[in-house]
Amino acid sequence: MSLGVREQVADSSRADILRAAAKCFMERGYAGTSIDDVARSLGATKGRIYHHFPSKADLFAEVFRAGMDMNYQAVEPLADVPGPALPRWRKMAMTHVLQMMVTKPFQRVVWIGVEMHLRGATTPEQRDALRELIDYRSNYGNLFRATLLQGREEGVFEFGDMSITNQLMFMTLNSPIFWYTPRVGETRADIENIASQVVDYALGGLCGKREKSR
Amino acid sequence: MSLGVREQVADSSRADILRAAAKCFMERGYAGTSIDDVARSLGATKGRIYHHFPSKADLFAEVFRAGMDMNYQAVEPLADVPGPALPRWRKMAMTHVLQMMVTKPFQRVVWIGVEMHLRGATTPEQRDALRELIDYRSNYGNLFRATLLQGREEGVFEFGDMSITNQLMFMTLNSPIFWYTPRVGETRADIENIASQVVDYALGGLCGKREKSR
Repeated sequence: MSLGVREQVADSSRADILRAAAKCFMERGYAGTSIDDVARSLGATKGRIYHHFPSKADLFAEVFRAGMDMNYQAVEPLADVPGPALPRWRKMAMTHVLQMMVTKPFQRVVWIGVEMHLRGATTPEQRDALRELIDYRSNYGNLFRATLLQGREEGVFEFGDMSITNQLMFMTLNSPIFWYTPRVGETRADIENIASQVVDYALGGLCGKREKSR
Repeated sequence: MSLGVREQVADSSRADILRAAAKCFMERGYAGTSIDDVARSLGATKGRIYHHFPSKADLFAEVFRAGMDMNYQAVEPLADVPGPALPRWRKMAMTHVLQMMVTKPFQRVVWIGVEMHLRGATTPEQRDALRELIDYRSNYGNLFRATLLQGREEGVFEFGDMSITNQLMFMTLNSPIFWYTPRVGETRADIENIASQVVDYALGGLCGKREKSR
């Protein structure tokens, strides 16, 4: 039992470090963040960080992974719910957007990782680690595919190229990580109101060509 | 007249440097790019770069400004064309998206600048220079405002919060800078086909709530 308590403490310590690291990476970028910065922001020693994460690259990778873990955990169970596509899509999209807002520092780290991958701006070992995370993220994107295709089949969605559509949809749904800033006194209803504007916009895009004059 | 020729040569040299620098910054980020990299990619000396741009920060700022100059030049004349909102919006949006695709390295530099501004990750002098460029970019965003409002008035657009809508619209219209890669043998028609899918998606978002079941 004492082991159980020790494990719990270690776990919460690890979670604290990931949260602090996410904020540091979000605010300073990868190159601008040191293990020292993360330790300082926690009021902890560098040793405590190194006890859990052997290097900055590892810490970054684990923040990225934790961000994606949270998204999978929230959205994956919704993807297999039977029934028509539109209400399922709406629930998945809403959950995803709320994730972007509520876990913003983690999601910004995911984005920083994507940009580093696009640039190839890392060592060969880091590139391999990053590639695995990028695949993990791409698979997440595929969670929406079946619902999009079903919706097109059912006539509620109307779109041409699937991969362009997926990009456009995710850019819209992810965008709060760039422009959303939590406000003092904000309620859950305020957050949901913003999220549902994002979902409505993304849905409009999926509903395709209507009376558009050219 | 010989002065004219010399000026022209100087100008084209400056344009070459800006183009090469945009590509370097896009591929390596701000921190990862040196004046040496830019010179090497041009097969030029560092001296030639320094002749035009006193520092890396200046070079970066001028690439950012050039990217926005091109956008203004392409879109501003369209913003004042009289008539109904929808066809004007469509023309502005299409022109903007083509800009994002055709001048992608410059537009990625604009984006890098926005992220640096958000992070405040620069010296005080660079922050001031960046703030001016960020304002220049925000004003560009405002070019679309009147058309959006007119479209809402005319009943073709339907949206709630104007500033959220503007963010969502621009994230969609800008998104090719992240996922579009020119392909060998691509024709103008191919590019326009991709751009019009982006415009259709963005327009769908603006057309607001339809038969969306909740």
